[in-house]
Amino acid sequence: MKLYEALAEEIAGMIAKNVLRPGERLPSVRQQQERRGVSPSTVFQAYYLLEARGAIESRPRSGYYVAQRQPLAPEPEASRPDGVSTVVDVSELVFSVLDAGRERSNVPFGSAFPSPLLFPLEKLGRAAAAALRRIDPWSTVADLPPGNAELRRQIALRYQLDGVQVAADEIVITNGALEALNLCLQAVAHPGDTVLVESPTFYAALQALERIGLKAVEVATHPREGMELGALAEALEQHKPQACWIMTSFQNPLGSLMPPEKKQALVELLARYDVPLIEDDVYGELYFGAQRPALAKRYDGKGLVMHCSSFSKCLAPGFRVGWAAPGRFARHVERLKLTTSLAAAMPSQLALAEYLGQGGYDRHLRQLRGALAGQQEKMMQAIARHFPPGTRFTQPQGGYFLWVALPEGVDALVLHRCALAHGISVAPGPIFSAKRAFRNCLRLNYGHHWDADHEAAIATLGQLARDQLQG
Amino acid sequence: MKLYEALAEEIAGMIAKNVLRPGERLPSVRQQQERRGVSPSTVFQAYYLLEARGAIESRPRSGYYVAQRQPLAPEPEASRPDGVSTVVDVSELVFSVLDAGRERSNVPFGSAFPSPLLFPLEKLGRAAAAALRRIDPWSTVADLPPGNAELRRQIALRYQLDGVQVAADEIVITNGALEALNLCLQAVAHPGDTVLVESPTFYAALQALERIGLKAVEVATHPREGMELGALAEALEQHKPQACWIMTSFQNPLGSLMPPEKKQALVELLARYDVPLIEDDVYGELYFGAQRPALAKRYDGKGLVMHCSSFSKCLAPGFRVGWAAPGRFARHVERLKLTTSLAAAMPSQLALAEYLGQGGYDRHLRQLRGALAGQQEKMMQAIARHFPPGTRFTQPQGGYFLWVALPEGVDALVLHRCALAHGISVAPGPIFSAKRAFRNCLRLNYGHHWDADHEAAIATLGQLARDQLQG
Repeated sequence: MKLYEALAEEIAGMIAKNVLRPGERLPSVRQQQERRGVSPSTVFQAYYLLEARGAIESRPRSGYYVAQRQPLAPEPEASRPDGVSTVVDVSELVFSVLDAGRERSNVPFGSAFPSPLLFPLEKLGRAAAAALRRIDPWSTVADLPPGNAELRRQIALRYQLDGVQVAADEIVITNGALEALNLCLQAVAHPGDTVLVESPTFYAALQALERIGLKAVEVATHPREGMELGALAEALEQHKPQACWIMTSFQNPLGSLMPPEKKQALVELLARYDVPLIEDDVYGELYFGAQRPALAKRYDGKGLVMHCSSFSKCLAPGFRVGWAAPGRFARHVERLKLTTSLAAAMPSQLALAEYLGQGGYDRHLRQLRGALAGQQEKMMQAIARHFPPGTRFTQPQGGYFLWVALPEGVDALVLHRCALAHGISVAPGPIFSAKRAFRNCLRLNYGHHWDADHEAAIATLGQLARDQLQG
Repeated sequence: MKLYEALAEEIAGMIAKNVLRPGERLPSVRQQQERRGVSPSTVFQAYYLLEARGAIESRPRSGYYVAQRQPLAPEPEASRPDGVSTVVDVSELVFSVLDAGRERSNVPFGSAFPSPLLFPLEKLGRAAAAALRRIDPWSTVADLPPGNAELRRQIALRYQLDGVQVAADEIVITNGALEALNLCLQAVAHPGDTVLVESPTFYAALQALERIGLKAVEVATHPREGMELGALAEALEQHKPQACWIMTSFQNPLGSLMPPEKKQALVELLARYDVPLIEDDVYGELYFGAQRPALAKRYDGKGLVMHCSSFSKCLAPGFRVGWAAPGRFARHVERLKLTTSLAAAMPSQLALAEYLGQGGYDRHLRQLRGALAGQQEKMMQAIARHFPPGTRFTQPQGGYFLWVALPEGVDALVLHRCALAHGISVAPGPIFSAKRAFRNCLRLNYGHHWDADHEAAIATLGQLARDQLQG
């Protein structure tokens, strides 16, 4: 980490812990210089970085102040699903939305991916070339599940840095996190079984349940702190589920982040019922705060937490390398991988092992987080300016999605269709629910470079929503 | 194709069509030179190539003769399964055999893969590097199912050369053929349904059925000509299956090759019952004759044939790029791919598209076929020398597996364990049957460079079998 980045992280931590309060003046550049012995340019760079993230703001001829992060809008209310299990049948709706959203010329607010321009594709390409030059031909056979040994070692090292003990042996390399999640699900649930999910929940989770013939019970979820444990306890009693699938950090679509003590309580609650937790953690590295959020797996004493993640959202989209650390189910998942698709692609595995070994991953992640935080701030301000009164939205501490609840009376599916006619894609709320709830909600992606087109697109969406309310 | 290769292919074709008969003398080098206007070295190279393949043999001071391909042993009899459906539960046995066979120091007769040294890994590495240097970042998002457009175009071109009309649009790129087969199976069959398979059949087919909760009906299969259509017709009447999964060319484990007219009759028979054919064709390119065997898909008039293949056995093991051409089920398979593992790895797809575009694939295939044919001949001769009287084996026209039926009284599972103690892996017959039949059979892999250790290993296997018969 460079000096200015370290300084920025330190100040961000002080803001997060409320040591520095909203509106408070930051030490001047001269003060920092004298007290810390750093150069003025280091301080300026740190302040610019924090300003780009929206954490501090400059006032002309006065200096830098902690941003007034009064919420730009109230956050949406926690969901209150009816707690009845549902045979999942949402795929057709999801596909029609996804197909419409893949047109490159559209403003990509409905996309599931951040901009590919944010990733070090050139460096990854060079890493792949270097690794393939040195390839041991026999590795093409030996790198069957659980996967390339060096890559698994690198992943295990990162778990250790995050305070979680995961042996390299426990890690099964998969064809992206989606395959990891599917395999974990199949390892513990069978057709007709029930699985608890968040409300709203990621549509791919619903599609996976649908494909395997599982029933979904959506559990009340708070837009800032994730699944509500009281509602979870009731669902555990009532439905005797075989698994619980939760995105514990920066949930898709809400952006909710379960606090560490709540994660611990979650793991303990599920352990009392002996129910496995499938912890979908693909956004965990995209935090805007000072530290990576804790993993629920950290609190796992019984091997019941199946932690799944990938490099697709934070480093190498398209390389299709994910993994599962499935606790006591590791061998079962490994064998399912073998009978489902044999192994993950060797060139991708080797390229990532090489890249991680070179040591630039954390620097890339810091840049990526900074870019996403800045783009989030800009999208929030634009929504606050252009959307109709009564609009609520989340203010996630990481990831690249905002969850927007428009006033009752706005139909997101209609809005989705009208927006497409204006060259704007959005992800309408009903695709995030087996019951097609959240009819007035949108998930908006701020993972792309913010420009005047984006500002105009938000204005158009706001106008379309107003038109509906007046029509 | 080089001149000597073209000449060798031409002669091989004449042998295959019986224009040149076993034991017949080939034209002398001088004759070829005069009649064809080619150089002596071209003729010598062609003859050396054919000799390496076991197609011709030199007799000192006499010239070259078409090899006496009297069978070295009688072929095994066609299987006679009982036609009762079976809930599949074979995975544990398969895994214990596979785990034992992955030890690199063992003689790899039990391996499912040919030697990785037979593949142009360096050239593929350079192709990957070149493709990744030119990558369009947006392709990392756009290359979702059905996959990279250029790669699909290249595959469609090869279909056309084989006389089959497959649009690039029909092709879904998958994570190896195994995923393609799994997705095709899931597109047409649901838990509790029945699927017809060969007897013996590839264990991964049995594992796929087991994982999805399908019932297998094993249908009588001839060791040279594949599934028997009379038995198939009975099974169609009796079991009302949802699909039929057949390896039409160089079946694993038998090596059987269904003749073209039988493939046509197969497709017509299944069409009368409206039953989809999952055509597993991963070995089709590894033919020793003059021409690629016909695809059953060639005779498909109703879109019922789901053709699956990959580059894993003939070009790029470990790249995990396969595909399905699923006829009328194409969109369904594409969507299943999206919900199962999203997409195939982009670096592998780009590398293969680049390699295929460069045009060296057919030359590589010719070399590979020559090497496999030569190794097959050597293994057959060694078995004929060392195995006990009464041993039968197949003489496949392609692929890299021999199916050996030892005399009744030899237990292949015992032989497998004893062989491992001698550092030799074999694939015992019972892993190729949901009923654990074929107790006296072995599948032996000749896909590795033949040497004295291999000769000695065959002798050891022969001795172990004799010990069992005498014990």
